[in-house]
Amino acid sequence: MYSFKNDYSEGAHPKILEALSKASKEQNTAYGMDSHSLRAANLIREKIGRSDADVHFLEGGTQTNLTAISAFLRPYEAAVSAETGHINGHETGAVEATGHKIVTVKADDGILTPQLIQKVLDQFQNEHTVKPKLVYISDSTEIGTIYTKAILSDLCDFCRKNGLFLYLDGARLGSALTAQGNDLTLRDLAQFCDAFYIGGTKNGALFGEALVTCNPELKENFRYMLKQRGAMLAKGMVLGVQFETLFEKNLYFELAEHANHMAERIKIAVRNSGFAFLSNSPTNQIFPILPNDFIKKLSQDFDFEVWEKTDASHTAIRLVTSWATPQDEVDRFIHCFYDFFE
Amino acid sequence: MYSFKNDYSEGAHPKILEALSKASKEQNTAYGMDSHSLRAANLIREKIGRSDADVHFLEGGTQTNLTAISAFLRPYEAAVSAETGHINGHETGAVEATGHKIVTVKADDGILTPQLIQKVLDQFQNEHTVKPKLVYISDSTEIGTIYTKAILSDLCDFCRKNGLFLYLDGARLGSALTAQGNDLTLRDLAQFCDAFYIGGTKNGALFGEALVTCNPELKENFRYMLKQRGAMLAKGMVLGVQFETLFEKNLYFELAEHANHMAERIKIAVRNSGFAFLSNSPTNQIFPILPNDFIKKLSQDFDFEVWEKTDASHTAIRLVTSWATPQDEVDRFIHCFYDFFE
Amino acid sequence: MYSFKNDYSEGAHPKILEALSKASKEQNTAYGMDSHSLRAANLIREKIGRSDADVHFLEGGTQTNLTAISAFLRPYEAAVSAETGHINGHETGAVEATGHKIVTVKADDGILTPQLIQKVLDQFQNEHTVKPKLVYISDSTEIGTIYTKAILSDLCDFCRKNGLFLYLDGARLGSALTAQGNDLTLRDLAQFCDAFYIGGTKNGALFGEALVTCNPELKENFRYMLKQRGAMLAKGMVLGVQFETLFEKNLYFELAEHANHMAERIKIAVRNSGFAFLSNSPTNQIFPILPNDFIKKLSQDFDFEVWEKTDASHTAIRLVTSWATPQDEVDRFIHCFYDFFE
Amino acid sequence: MYSFKNDYSEGAHPKILEALSKASKEQNTAYGMDSHSLRAANLIREKIGRSDADVHFLEGGTQTNLTAISAFLRPYEAAVSAETGHINGHETGAVEATGHKIVTVKADDGILTPQLIQKVLDQFQNEHTVKPKLVYISDSTEIGTIYTKAILSDLCDFCRKNGLFLYLDGARLGSALTAQGNDLTLRDLAQFCDAFYIGGTKNGALFGEALVTCNPELKENFRYMLKQRGAMLAKGMVLGVQFETLFEKNLYFELAEHANHMAERIKIAVRNSGFAFLSNSPTNQIFPILPNDFIKKLSQDFDFEVWEKTDASHTAIRLVTSWATPQDEVDRFIHCFYDFFE
Repeated sequence: MYSFKNDYSEGAHPKILEALSKASKEQNTAYGMDSHSLRAANLIREKIGRSDADVHFLEGGTQTNLTAISAFLRPYEAAVSAETGHINGHETGAVEATGHKIVTVKADDGILTPQLIQKVLDQFQNEHTVKPKLVYISDSTEIGTIYTKAILSDLCDFCRKNGLFLYLDGARLGSALTAQGNDLTLRDLAQFCDAFYIGGTKNGALFGEALVTCNPELKENFRYMLKQRGAMLAKGMVLGVQFETLFEKNLYFELAEHANHMAERIKIAVRNSGFAFLSNSPTNQIFPILPNDFIKKLSQDFDFEVWEKTDASHTAIRLVTSWATPQDEVDRFIHCFYDFFE
Repeated sequence: MYSFKNDYSEGAHPKILEALSKASKEQNTAYGMDSHSLRAANLIREKIGRSDADVHFLEGGTQTNLTAISAFLRPYEAAVSAETGHINGHETGAVEATGHKIVTVKADDGILTPQLIQKVLDQFQNEHTVKPKLVYISDSTEIGTIYTKAILSDLCDFCRKNGLFLYLDGARLGSALTAQGNDLTLRDLAQFCDAFYIGGTKNGALFGEALVTCNPELKENFRYMLKQRGAMLAKGMVLGVQFETLFEKNLYFELAEHANHMAERIKIAVRNSGFAFLSNSPTNQIFPILPNDFIKKLSQDFDFEVWEKTDASHTAIRLVTSWATPQDEVDRFIHCFYDFFE
Repeated sequence: MYSFKNDYSEGAHPKILEALSKASKEQNTAYGMDSHSLRAANLIREKIGRSDADVHFLEGGTQTNLTAISAFLRPYEAAVSAETGHINGHETGAVEATGHKIVTVKADDGILTPQLIQKVLDQFQNEHTVKPKLVYISDSTEIGTIYTKAILSDLCDFCRKNGLFLYLDGARLGSALTAQGNDLTLRDLAQFCDAFYIGGTKNGALFGEALVTCNPELKENFRYMLKQRGAMLAKGMVLGVQFETLFEKNLYFELAEHANHMAERIKIAVRNSGFAFLSNSPTNQIFPILPNDFIKKLSQDFDFEVWEKTDASHTAIRLVTSWATPQDEVDRFIHCFYDFFE
Repeated sequence: MYSFKNDYSEGAHPKILEALSKASKEQNTAYGMDSHSLRAANLIREKIGRSDADVHFLEGGTQTNLTAISAFLRPYEAAVSAETGHINGHETGAVEATGHKIVTVKADDGILTPQLIQKVLDQFQNEHTVKPKLVYISDSTEIGTIYTKAILSDLCDFCRKNGLFLYLDGARLGSALTAQGNDLTLRDLAQFCDAFYIGGTKNGALFGEALVTCNPELKENFRYMLKQRGAMLAKGMVLGVQFETLFEKNLYFELAEHANHMAERIKIAVRNSGFAFLSNSPTNQIFPILPNDFIKKLSQDFDFEVWEKTDASHTAIRLVTSWATPQDEVDRFIHCFYDFFE
């Protein structure tokens, strides 16, 4: 039984484990001030072309989102998110638990645009409602779609004109930036976003996300927030080493490319068998709509999430590939299509 | 330069790293429902003799404290802590950030007693003050002292009689339970405490604490709290594997014994050289009071925290040993005493 | 210029002011334990037929909602509200500021039903989302509509079956219970709801809401919550006297009937002039859809809120009557219709 | 039985009740934007000599403290208070419930000084502790003592030099500013404090406190905070009218002078009878230390709080006078001394 349920079933890439074993023998400064964390931060600053950016390493996505958003907002300010946004639907009210409302917007492809946010601003205009202040987006989105440079640039202009912070959740940023059709780079993100995070958990690390803060207004005293929210690891080296390994060469992007490539192979098989997708995803999460009997067959050998019924005889499933997905499992999966539909 | 600054300078014990490397290749269920986490929880349940206890794995001490305390209390309820308690002085207001006051008690040796808590209860009696509801203790304490079975048993009785929860912070529990003079066991803790945590970060793990909840009243829906506070690791296996390794045999206690043994060697040298300690610590944190010129000399080769001045020519320093402290560094340190004071 | 903008433009009914003047000379026990508050609570207990209910007096609607909801819920639990619900759109994130998410449901007439809530329950099923626990409804709703006994009874059954609390915001409860078509009584509310509040601010008081808690599970230590949220008035007598006056005879319902009667007169004129309404409101808030040029004319002599455009030449306005609305102003308003459209 | 238990037993001064009755007939703009509130704010601005100050009216002291402090601080910032400070001991953790720690300082007379705060700053220096940011003081203090211009000026200088906000709780400000030995004025407060509130509840109003914000940095969007914390009264006029009446002439200070005068009469009798006080209070709260048998006698005719035992045969009691305390009750009380001790 092979699982396509998510991109966090396996542990870490061997290079990361090796680096951790090596660093384990050293005595490192605590709480993220060790040489590995400092170097990892510098490597990221180089990749994004912003020597002035703050880089902090946190343990997970929900933790990063709640720590950053509660640090950036005043009590009466709110985050704006797509209904499908991870902070809205899959973080157990973590942002609200820090006191902030999330204002949601219906966006069929998971992508926020200036037009969608303008509607929110029109509706929230005085002290009887929260004040929308931060725009939360994900790239890739929770349904696998990606932002283009044109849209993100527009969104950035709109946010700056309206005094909004633009924050990007990059839990699957590697997959987004190496996807077919992507024209964004880390440098672009650093230019367009006030803050964003580079996801490690879903791209080769045991765990860990790198929060990059570009807007100087959002930097002050952030380490206090890390500590207060339980996000400051005593052995910060453990995070630093992982990101050092991911970014000292090109490992972060190589791993993401592999994941996308594995998804692409499956997509071709789906299309060749005559089936469509729930969303237009060039990334490592895909949502093919398949006949129910075939899904039953597939589930004898493979694990995946059943997403939603689309008609009486068809259902969308979610397949997630990762840096660790072996090509032979993908091929075995693909063969099911050819066996079944030939 | 060797550091006695803390017990989280080194990474993980080699056995843990090996186990992580091995498990990294598997596909594990996410969010702490993997076989390693389940087995680790069972191993702990066996050691504490409570098959009904809940065991959850979290990433760090502050995170564990804030998640547990905010789960256990109603909004108007407070934690009672020694002034020296970690939640009071070293967690950046993490508990208050979840909405709860910490009521502090002066306890010179860091140990809370029924008498000290009774005074709080006498003072907090109606709705114009918070309602003390949870007693927070640490074993070993922040100044290295330990609880005895007699005191903990009394405290337990007192808490039950007064409707208070007894919660024990075990960041350095290994060191406490293997200290000279200790008469407590994990089984005792499970009997006396409503909840407690077994610290991994400071005893051989890369990171991680095991929260054990014995009082059924405190168990319900705790996984919601884990997720909301950003404490649920996607690859929960990473925590499970570490505690599996620590508890499948006796590694957890062996590592702690080593740390205590190293501290004991230093204590003998301190005493032989005619010096006293700030607190009566049988654990891996000791606070010798030394002449200032000798401290200056020591600091040429060793790193440690300067704790507090005790008179014009003497100062207490903090020395922390760990599972990773090599005996030869301890011996080199001890020789400084003999060289200087002979 | 006469204003139909809201039902809180005028101060208190003369009988309330007289009673306040009289009680001002007495020495009363503080913090709501005075004889007036105790008597007012008893009067309400009699009207609802529940001698066991808790009755607390608070200063305003937002305060009551945030205090009650944060008292009733655990940190990971959420309130379910119609999108139009006051806590969602008009309280500046007050509930979220206490840490709780509001899950919203689209309900065109502002009325929640078991079917609508079932959908929420289907969607929120594990620890990756909040746990829906409290159903928030308003009677009358924010758009003037009212609950029937049949719907409220169904909702009650559904909530009990699913372990949900049913909480009713009665900011305009007087108007709802005296509306044409209403078949609910205070006794019914006490039977169907776990808690509800009886609004004073919008029905004759200077300010004040009476929170009635029927479910014993929700009563404990509520006075701690009152104090902590800044809702416990030192001179609690000021609230007690007002509710004593409203409920010692039938003043509360008389005032509400007058408000409804004034709205009814306007509704007839609207209908006679051939116009419709945005919602089917039998209460003191009505939303006629009128020609833009007529609205312009009306606004020369009357104040009201322009609600929303319905087509190129028509707009819905909101008219609110109150216990203080003089009939001659209503008649003057009505005459504008007859003058304009004859 | 006459009560000296507190200064909130009676209702409002007759002039306030008259003004409320008159204003009740008007139609006023809602939410504190009415002409009475605007005029009351202007009257206060004139008295403090700061036309640029923001003035907001809230319902009570705890509410004002929690709303102001949570508006002024970032999540990791803390308030510094005397142990006796109202926010620390008598507000049910209201400030902590908004997420902020209160750091307490032992100050025997309830007065904070630069020296006392410097010690806190020395202790809280990095991200492992909260960041002290706001100094909370009360004038008069919770034990009746008052600040002098010299001390407040020093405190102000110290706070500005150290980037701290100085916030003054003026629940009993009238009594402080009219006390014997006081050399402070409202103008001084506006110069020295970043924000302070002028207490109405304990000085003639039914309820209400006027928050004055002088530091421009603390003003922005405060009305959002008012609404979010449930502190924005729909009929804001009710608060405006009361402060208009208190400040349009000199009523606020006349009422406070009366209270002080009544306390002074009792103090003379206490001293003449040979007894001392627990604190040096020139204000309307006094704490005479009396023989237990005499206290027993007094309690047959008068109500007051028994404060604390001072020796086997003596106890301190708390006596509070107010604007409403009749001189004949004071004289009757005094006669008990002369009867008993002659």
